[in-house]
Amino acid sequence: MNVDGKKYRTIWPAEDGGSVEIIDQTRFPYRFEIVSLRTVEDAAHAIRDMQVRGAPLIGATAAYGVALAMKADPSDENLHAACSALLQTRPTAVNLHWALDRALKSLVQVAPERRADAALELAAAVCDEDIAINMAIGMHGMKLVAALSATKRRGEPVNILTHCNAGWLATVDWGTATAPIYMAHDGGIPVHVWVDETRPRNQGAFLTAWELGQHGVPHTVVVDNAGGHLMQRGEVDMVIVGTDRTTATGDVCNKIGTYLKALAARDNDVPFYVALPSPTIDFSLSDGLREIPIEERGGEEVSRMSGRLSDGSVDTIDIVADGSEVGNPAFDVTPACLVTGLITERGVLEPNRKALADAFPERVRTRA
Amino acid sequence: MNVDGKKYRTIWPAEDGGSVEIIDQTRFPYRFEIVSLRTVEDAAHAIRDMQVRGAPLIGATAAYGVALAMKADPSDENLHAACSALLQTRPTAVNLHWALDRALKSLVQVAPERRADAALELAAAVCDEDIAINMAIGMHGMKLVAALSATKRRGEPVNILTHCNAGWLATVDWGTATAPIYMAHDGGIPVHVWVDETRPRNQGAFLTAWELGQHGVPHTVVVDNAGGHLMQRGEVDMVIVGTDRTTATGDVCNKIGTYLKALAARDNDVPFYVALPSPTIDFSLSDGLREIPIEERGGEEVSRMSGRLSDGSVDTIDIVADGSEVGNPAFDVTPACLVTGLITERGVLEPNRKALADAFPERVRTRA
Repeated sequence: MNVDGKKYRTIWPAEDGGSVEIIDQTRFPYRFEIVSLRTVEDAAHAIRDMQVRGAPLIGATAAYGVALAMKADPSDENLHAACSALLQTRPTAVNLHWALDRALKSLVQVAPERRADAALELAAAVCDEDIAINMAIGMHGMKLVAALSATKRRGEPVNILTHCNAGWLATVDWGTATAPIYMAHDGGIPVHVWVDETRPRNQGAFLTAWELGQHGVPHTVVVDNAGGHLMQRGEVDMVIVGTDRTTATGDVCNKIGTYLKALAARDNDVPFYVALPSPTIDFSLSDGLREIPIEERGGEEVSRMSGRLSDGSVDTIDIVADGSEVGNPAFDVTPACLVTGLITERGVLEPNRKALADAFPERVRTRA
Repeated sequence: MNVDGKKYRTIWPAEDGGSVEIIDQTRFPYRFEIVSLRTVEDAAHAIRDMQVRGAPLIGATAAYGVALAMKADPSDENLHAACSALLQTRPTAVNLHWALDRALKSLVQVAPERRADAALELAAAVCDEDIAINMAIGMHGMKLVAALSATKRRGEPVNILTHCNAGWLATVDWGTATAPIYMAHDGGIPVHVWVDETRPRNQGAFLTAWELGQHGVPHTVVVDNAGGHLMQRGEVDMVIVGTDRTTATGDVCNKIGTYLKALAARDNDVPFYVALPSPTIDFSLSDGLREIPIEERGGEEVSRMSGRLSDGSVDTIDIVADGSEVGNPAFDVTPACLVTGLITERGVLEPNRKALADAFPERVRTRA
């Protein structure tokens, strides 16, 4: 999407032909810096230190990491070493595992002298596939926005609330929850986005607000507490969020606080949509609340916050009374009964086992 | 309550007999400082600059401000001037108006040579009445905590979630939502409090966490997003919050985000209580959502945050992407249907017109 009027992806091969460039996301929202990855170690560092983040972008960066390794040394030994090193950066990231598995299986069948090119092509394909999925989500979701827009007076925007960052910065381009928003905006449908601050880590105020602002989409940042009130007052027409993991039955695991917004949406008859690329559906799970373990992250994400001081420098402050315990569950589960629809690359689906299985039959294990 | 093992109120006459002392709440949570008020101007400054906050404490400070004025000059002219100056500090504060009205009506009937003593007695009475109300709320609420404790294994705490600060720092002592908690804790009933950070202004992480910690009450600070998840996992036994204004029908206006917790409580069968001194009931209102205007406060409360830097100094950082709009509704309304009970000084009431009118018949206007 646009940054300061210029089109970007989050990762791309550099013009020199020998390196890959990324946007350094650790510098957001107060600096926009592009970083060159020249070696597989650079790629591993970018993933480990969260210069790149978001499942699809992590997968794409890993694929480019393999390409950089193959350019330096296309041997079988180095192929395995590169995949292994990249996998260690964030061992629990599903897309990382998937992208590396795919690269390894594909490249071992390629002769070493052709591996550098093949790896680069594979990485480009991983990126293009992510974009194709997100654009399909965007097209399906945009129809929902357009339908709401048709009920408005001319020029009056559709008010969309989103939580966390399921934006283009978490993918190669377009994002998931943001894809319908960007497509509607680019297509001339007036939209306005309520951006939840998204404590802790503040991905809404830092990332979603930044990317919407750069692309010119009207938006307002509010604290996470405000969404219910806005819905009570009729100021939200729809909610669109992303997801980290969705069950075969449509239960949605996403950033902590998503569930509260889903409850408020139901209480105020506001449609609540989840945008998801189908790889995030886990067809082995039936009950999100029972089966999805919720990661408890470090308390300093809650008790400390980084931002910009008046002299322009970025620093970190303490923001909890000394001596207090701090809890930090990172995700919550929104039961399928609170979800209006799942916006996938194959259409907007009802959140139930049959609808998901019908749309993705190849993903459902055949039972004897 | 206790601070570092020593009992305090938030305001008290100094031992020198000529001044009044307060805890400077603008320094929380990283400094505990006592400030002397020697003149009515000092009292006005303390209210205006929020060294004192919370409706009951503002009322008490105003009453002491009148006493300081009467000590300096007990004339009718100065009595009116003092009340007028104090009222200007925060014109919309209901308790401020009420305390000054009471002081004026009472003191004009007292001969000037007795006014200094009478004003001091009146201020002490305002404080004692606040404490009596909060202790009554505490006793009624403690029974609810005790009943839940009886369902637990020995030693297992009752988990209470609270939002914002309806603690002793907002009153003269005990607080409202915290009174049942302090009484249960002091009475040997094991409790543990989930303290919502409470964005913006962070009164939970700054004030509630500080006062619970100083008094030795086990507690854990969590972001506002976490409460629903905790309830889904059975980790919350009850919610107790305060209120700024409650309608005759039991609709509760309180800090933004309260409504989201009430929704989650209903969805998970967690009892949701509101602790309120009866002066916060507005018997002229029937429909909280329609009739209570919600204050939109300045965006810098959302886009900037103060805290302690690593060198120990307190500073303010920017925490929203540049150029983004910011919204800041300060309160929301929780409809009575989501409230389990109103903990008042006259008992735990059902949130409906009849129960409130029966408990406070003198407050209900007689209709011809």
